[in-house]
Amino acid sequence: MSERKIEPSLLSGFRDYGPEEMIAREEMILAIRDVYERYGFDPLDTAVIERTDVLTGGREDFEMILFNANLSRGSQESKMSLRFDLTVSLARFVASHPDLPKPFKRYQIGKVYRGEKPQAGRFREFIQFDVDTVGTWSPIADAEIIEVMVAAMRALDVERFVVRFSNRKLLDGLAELAGFSGGKVKNVLRVVDKLEKVGMESVRAELLKQPVNELDRNALGMSKEAADRIERFLSIRGSSDAVLQELRTKLRGATVAEEGIQELETIVRYLRASGVEERFWRIDPSIARGLDYYTGPVFETRLLDFPEIGSVYSGGRYDNLVSRFTNAIVPGTGASIGIDRLFVALEKLGHIKKRRTLCEALILMLDKNLPWEYAAMLKELRSGGIRTNFYLGDEQSFQAQFNVAVSLGIPVVILYGSKEHEANVVGVRDMIRRTQRNVPRAELVGEVKRVLSLGR
Amino acid sequence: MSERKIEPSLLSGFRDYGPEEMIAREEMILAIRDVYERYGFDPLDTAVIERTDVLTGGREDFEMILFNANLSRGSQESKMSLRFDLTVSLARFVASHPDLPKPFKRYQIGKVYRGEKPQAGRFREFIQFDVDTVGTWSPIADAEIIEVMVAAMRALDVERFVVRFSNRKLLDGLAELAGFSGGKVKNVLRVVDKLEKVGMESVRAELLKQPVNELDRNALGMSKEAADRIERFLSIRGSSDAVLQELRTKLRGATVAEEGIQELETIVRYLRASGVEERFWRIDPSIARGLDYYTGPVFETRLLDFPEIGSVYSGGRYDNLVSRFTNAIVPGTGASIGIDRLFVALEKLGHIKKRRTLCEALILMLDKNLPWEYAAMLKELRSGGIRTNFYLGDEQSFQAQFNVAVSLGIPVVILYGSKEHEANVVGVRDMIRRTQRNVPRAELVGEVKRVLSLGR
Repeated sequence: MSERKIEPSLLSGFRDYGPEEMIAREEMILAIRDVYERYGFDPLDTAVIERTDVLTGGREDFEMILFNANLSRGSQESKMSLRFDLTVSLARFVASHPDLPKPFKRYQIGKVYRGEKPQAGRFREFIQFDVDTVGTWSPIADAEIIEVMVAAMRALDVERFVVRFSNRKLLDGLAELAGFSGGKVKNVLRVVDKLEKVGMESVRAELLKQPVNELDRNALGMSKEAADRIERFLSIRGSSDAVLQELRTKLRGATVAEEGIQELETIVRYLRASGVEERFWRIDPSIARGLDYYTGPVFETRLLDFPEIGSVYSGGRYDNLVSRFTNAIVPGTGASIGIDRLFVALEKLGHIKKRRTLCEALILMLDKNLPWEYAAMLKELRSGGIRTNFYLGDEQSFQAQFNVAVSLGIPVVILYGSKEHEANVVGVRDMIRRTQRNVPRAELVGEVKRVLSLGR
Repeated sequence: MSERKIEPSLLSGFRDYGPEEMIAREEMILAIRDVYERYGFDPLDTAVIERTDVLTGGREDFEMILFNANLSRGSQESKMSLRFDLTVSLARFVASHPDLPKPFKRYQIGKVYRGEKPQAGRFREFIQFDVDTVGTWSPIADAEIIEVMVAAMRALDVERFVVRFSNRKLLDGLAELAGFSGGKVKNVLRVVDKLEKVGMESVRAELLKQPVNELDRNALGMSKEAADRIERFLSIRGSSDAVLQELRTKLRGATVAEEGIQELETIVRYLRASGVEERFWRIDPSIARGLDYYTGPVFETRLLDFPEIGSVYSGGRYDNLVSRFTNAIVPGTGASIGIDRLFVALEKLGHIKKRRTLCEALILMLDKNLPWEYAAMLKELRSGGIRTNFYLGDEQSFQAQFNVAVSLGIPVVILYGSKEHEANVVGVRDMIRRTQRNVPRAELVGEVKRVLSLGR
């Protein structure tokens, strides 16, 4: 006892999920999983620790801070790191299983790790829930991802959201028309991606900014005419049909953009044929997604009552998925939910029902001489599908045991002491309505089910 | 394309779980989880990366090889490691939440990491599924863990297993009677734990072996009389009542052993009162569990048709759970399943139904001009709760698309080309019974449900 004690603390950027949060989070995950499965996606799980070069693509200048792994003793053959997303591992899996029937539709949930400085609400270990279709060029696969995103949000009882989407090919076409080189598109994307945060004036200023010297690659130094074109493009709004019409006009003559518009048209038609209500989706040319690996449609999800949190569910098409590993060309499209972030948002919006326990009924230990009678009750209740506990703690008094049920919000308390034992009855207390009935011992399960059926 | 490619391989000791294995594994996990919840356990999740001293208890000579974690760039404040089990994190969680209502009953599933040399069937990353009750001294909590273990195995449709249990206090009492010091009990445990593997002769030889010198702590150097006592103790077999009777005789006078026998009696009475069939459990004094942190009852689960795999589900009482972190005394009892190991065993025993996909119905793309009609069908089927896919791959021919359904084992294929479109019918093929019916287009969902209801 006098030995030095270890501080029972977590590392900065890491967290536990106690029962209250886990119960709500598991409900959320099950609802999303049910949608993914109904849409024909199958589960996949991959290793959390990968070879470092698999994750970085062998780039020494890899920009993200990774968690590397080392054995505490002994020698190790390869450099190892913890995955920072689930997409790279999907690519590795697909590349190493060339015979996988295509399209391969999979979902995957798992923890990922990033070494960035922990900030409020940002963690170094967090959970992603991804859904991807691999091995098809069809824009219907992209449409299906949007449909799944809408269905998943609705399965979480969220109605006030919109999935906005665009196509990377539009910006490529615009580059062609506005006369800036393809190499600059990547930087334009980064600037445009900040539009919502910083506003059009700032975006314009960044586009026009002249480089200080030749090494200043981030200053785009665009002509006023090119910036005007980009501004007009980003400002296109309206119904899907109106937006498509205007895009056709503004991007006429740029082959790659016309291809992109065609894909958007297919997506729109498919969403309509599938009966996905139009209030849940919208074409928005200002959607850029900062990451430069997207090659076609890109998607974002905004909560209408919490726009400042940014997109909670995003993705797009990336047609070079496995090119890091093989010469085969395997296209992919998908979306990813940051579960922790979405959870925070839904909690703030009042969509999360919190419960401190899943337990539905607690049997108090009112008489220490009746353990076998309590055991029989437990068996009956649990066999009846009721999640039941028997109080085994240190508290002896009725009141103290009862308070445990109150503090945990257990909806039914079962009272059985020597008096009830003699009379062959049992007390069933409805903790929500604060009523209590003594019923014949044989009717215990029926009475508890009756009370639970009344709901909260 | 000519750039150097990265080898898409996994690190040694790591693995992926493709859909076929994931589907079966998820069913297994859900069945176990349902049992845990019915028995009143709530979910908990903790960080995978912990402070190293939390995991090792600050011991420099920690015997296990850990995976340590380091940032790829920048400075880090603490030594970090990946957890090697879920129990230490539970202890940390309990120690840092002193106000947690007790008993705290939680289940947790998660990956754990050990740096041992990978061998056939042994991995460095594997999944544990734990169930623990924290904060009660009652042997009824131990009995409940045994009951949960039996219920979980039965939920997996396994009947040919037995949970064997004993109590560490018996061996402590035996040490008292046989005149070997308490300090030696730890080594005796290690020897006894190998009984099944090496046989009684070898155990006896190890007990009797004289130390070569003073530093030889592993040689026990017992008297013949003490070894005889241990052998007689380990050989006690029979019905629970007979075993208890014999233990009472053989260990009479050793207070701590009498306490342990009392606890076993309570467990037996409780299991009977709960109606847990006696063919599923047995007192067996030879159960030792090698780990030295157990302080009371210990449990193991053996598959009768695959004994050589060893225990697939084990645990026990450890009353010094949080002593590493605080002066508070918090007892605990629980059990842990090695999911990967159990999966391998159940697979070998034919208890795992394998499916390559969850998808129940595949719509073939027989006419490229009908995408919107296919979209409408998908919507109807998915809204009807049927897990459905639409073929979006590169194959154009009926036969090639059909073969995808065959190879994945999808039970229903839906055929709708221009002919069916004109006649307003749809072909629904039962892939199990190899029959096919054309039904009116409006009856699609009903017909698919009918076919699926016929089962496999």
